[in-house]
Amino acid sequence: MTREKIEQSIEEIFEDISRIFKDIEDGSRDNLGVTRPSYGDGENFAHRYLSEYADELGLEVTKDASSNTYMTLPGQNRSAPRIIFGSHLDSVQDGGNFDGAAGVVAGLALIMILKKLNITPVCDVVAMGIRAEESVWFQVSYLGSRGALGALPEGALDAKRIDTGRTAREHIADCGGDPDALAQGKAYLSSSNVKFFVELHIEQAPSLIERDIPVGICTGVPGLFMYPDARIQGEYGHVGTPRVYRHDAAMAGAEFAMALDQEWARQEANGTQMAITFGRFHTDSAAHGMTTIPGEFCFSMDVRGYEPALIEHMERFVASTVQNIEANRNVKFKLGEKRAAAIGFTDQELEKALYESASKMNVPAVMMKSPASHDAGAFSAAGIPTGMVFVRNENGSHNPREKMSIEDFFQGVRTIIPWLLDEVTV
Amino acid sequence: MTREKIEQSIEEIFEDISRIFKDIEDGSRDNLGVTRPSYGDGENFAHRYLSEYADELGLEVTKDASSNTYMTLPGQNRSAPRIIFGSHLDSVQDGGNFDGAAGVVAGLALIMILKKLNITPVCDVVAMGIRAEESVWFQVSYLGSRGALGALPEGALDAKRIDTGRTAREHIADCGGDPDALAQGKAYLSSSNVKFFVELHIEQAPSLIERDIPVGICTGVPGLFMYPDARIQGEYGHVGTPRVYRHDAAMAGAEFAMALDQEWARQEANGTQMAITFGRFHTDSAAHGMTTIPGEFCFSMDVRGYEPALIEHMERFVASTVQNIEANRNVKFKLGEKRAAAIGFTDQELEKALYESASKMNVPAVMMKSPASHDAGAFSAAGIPTGMVFVRNENGSHNPREKMSIEDFFQGVRTIIPWLLDEVTV
Repeated sequence: MTREKIEQSIEEIFEDISRIFKDIEDGSRDNLGVTRPSYGDGENFAHRYLSEYADELGLEVTKDASSNTYMTLPGQNRSAPRIIFGSHLDSVQDGGNFDGAAGVVAGLALIMILKKLNITPVCDVVAMGIRAEESVWFQVSYLGSRGALGALPEGALDAKRIDTGRTAREHIADCGGDPDALAQGKAYLSSSNVKFFVELHIEQAPSLIERDIPVGICTGVPGLFMYPDARIQGEYGHVGTPRVYRHDAAMAGAEFAMALDQEWARQEANGTQMAITFGRFHTDSAAHGMTTIPGEFCFSMDVRGYEPALIEHMERFVASTVQNIEANRNVKFKLGEKRAAAIGFTDQELEKALYESASKMNVPAVMMKSPASHDAGAFSAAGIPTGMVFVRNENGSHNPREKMSIEDFFQGVRTIIPWLLDEVTV
Repeated sequence: MTREKIEQSIEEIFEDISRIFKDIEDGSRDNLGVTRPSYGDGENFAHRYLSEYADELGLEVTKDASSNTYMTLPGQNRSAPRIIFGSHLDSVQDGGNFDGAAGVVAGLALIMILKKLNITPVCDVVAMGIRAEESVWFQVSYLGSRGALGALPEGALDAKRIDTGRTAREHIADCGGDPDALAQGKAYLSSSNVKFFVELHIEQAPSLIERDIPVGICTGVPGLFMYPDARIQGEYGHVGTPRVYRHDAAMAGAEFAMALDQEWARQEANGTQMAITFGRFHTDSAAHGMTTIPGEFCFSMDVRGYEPALIEHMERFVASTVQNIEANRNVKFKLGEKRAAAIGFTDQELEKALYESASKMNVPAVMMKSPASHDAGAFSAAGIPTGMVFVRNENGSHNPREKMSIEDFFQGVRTIIPWLLDEVTV
């Protein structure tokens, strides 16, 4: 297969792909940005739209119990372990169009290229639209992919969506899934029926932009633990109360956040990559006031890293910091339910192969750790060889200003082609 | 005048006073505690109730342009500078019954004792019900007393009540006041027509409780500056974004609060009394989420102290801390409008006289600084000899569990009697 022929195929589907992105965006645009709630309207729209598109392409379109969408180009041997390209189709509230969707469209683009080149792959090649990756909705990570992998964490089906208050179980059933089957925990996908999982995703930090390189090959997806609904109980009191008599819940929150932030700075100075985010961080709007010491403080916390020892260290650090602050500030922490997701170890051979594949297509690429967590982490935890390709993106993600150029997207797709052709042809 | 005769008079009015407290509380009780908004229903109730009570006692009841209530026992010389016992009748949302009201009832109790002892004082003796001391409602301190003293800060009449959104001007007019007269800034009370202002108030910290002493004689009322509506502008971003690329407004808020808290701890270690409170301290509930870096953070800040040099130092400290954090965290502070109130220097001769007065009545008392700001600060700033008597109180203030025993209240009243008798008899 010559590079010229491949390039020609890519150019011919360029227009189509631009239209897909535009249509998905239009179908899930709200006030400020794009909103595709997990198991909600915007997400349903994206699944339906891509299913119809795949159907027109002549692909097999199926669903699993999680209502994930599989758009399959059948292989010569239907029972051979398949290759899946996928990502999620949900988004945060007022997010961007590409966080998630780009990886599903990339799968379709790769399949379109195979078809254009008249290749019947040795195994099935699948573009997978995954449900419910964004943990902001159900406060659970990877609900869709972990459902498919038979690896839902305990209680996940009873988690309530923050905007509707209804359970994942109810929402999954509404979207045509089968929560009872999921509850049995059987794996629909596993290392025995999936050969590779490869996820293309926009980079959610501007490091590729800053380095002026369009593509990154992922060398690790962070594991994380989070407390979606933590509280600090103090005592409301008069603004003039001396220090020693205070039970100031907000100051306790500030001290806790700063202690974790300083630990992060220390870890980073030692070369350890990680991230800590307090997404919700607030006094109680029903009770706070300018001249009242806050008696209650609420926060969510997300801690992520790439090394099991670091995650364990941070869990101990959280516990000891809580203990110190409780003793010094006369308050009580209620961290609440803890959620966690395993570190995603990418496949080193696959990493190397994808890097070489990029250079075969003259795509400038670097090896890098994923700043964000991804469904790829769930596939990796299930023992499936997993890779990720990042595409440079301006203005971060989880906001409406997210910005990937379609040309860069195609550099990401190009990166994968030589490797895919090697895998699917004999 | 024998102490026995005084004690007998006190006992006889004890029952009446208990009833006053209970009726005021019943008239302004809401869900959780007592709510008497500045220039609002609960406050109006308390003014009306005490006016009727004073009328039955045969006192003169008058109002000024701020709609403060004056309940006057006429003196032998009506044009001699008067002695005022007063405090405020408003409360915070879900506050306690005694923060403010105790000082007005104490004034009535003292007048009842004079009447019981058949004393016609040499000058008018006044129980003053003051409006709008609690700055939480209009975000302005001492609206009522500064109105009476012709010392309203610029823009005070245009300040909006946080719950109704209507201006102080409108609310004052509703309550029978004359905002146009106030706008002219003429002083109704001044050092030429007020001889002393004495405020009895519950202590808002538990220091008297801890020392097992019922009464404190105030040696200073804090001055303050506050930013009712400060904001930090950052950028919303993905939870996985590396440290260097973040514009985390909440972490900037936490760092700012901790820097001020640490400065407070340093000042206190050097023996300087002060207080810092972040009453509102929060991410934006319409935009925050567990997996999004907060792009905006809101807070209110109140800094108070007893020395002009400290207040100036803290103002500079706030400015330099803002500058540092802006530079290190890629955020922008908008502190917004600043409000301030002068330090209240109590009258040293009056302090000494009140302390001696307490010992004459065998009331255990200590000299102490006021933890809270009070209307007394405004009278002191106007050059009127000012004193305060604190009564021990459990569970702090600005919460429904505020708790003063009526017996302790009477210890506070007893404290003042010998001094008052000296002043009003020849």
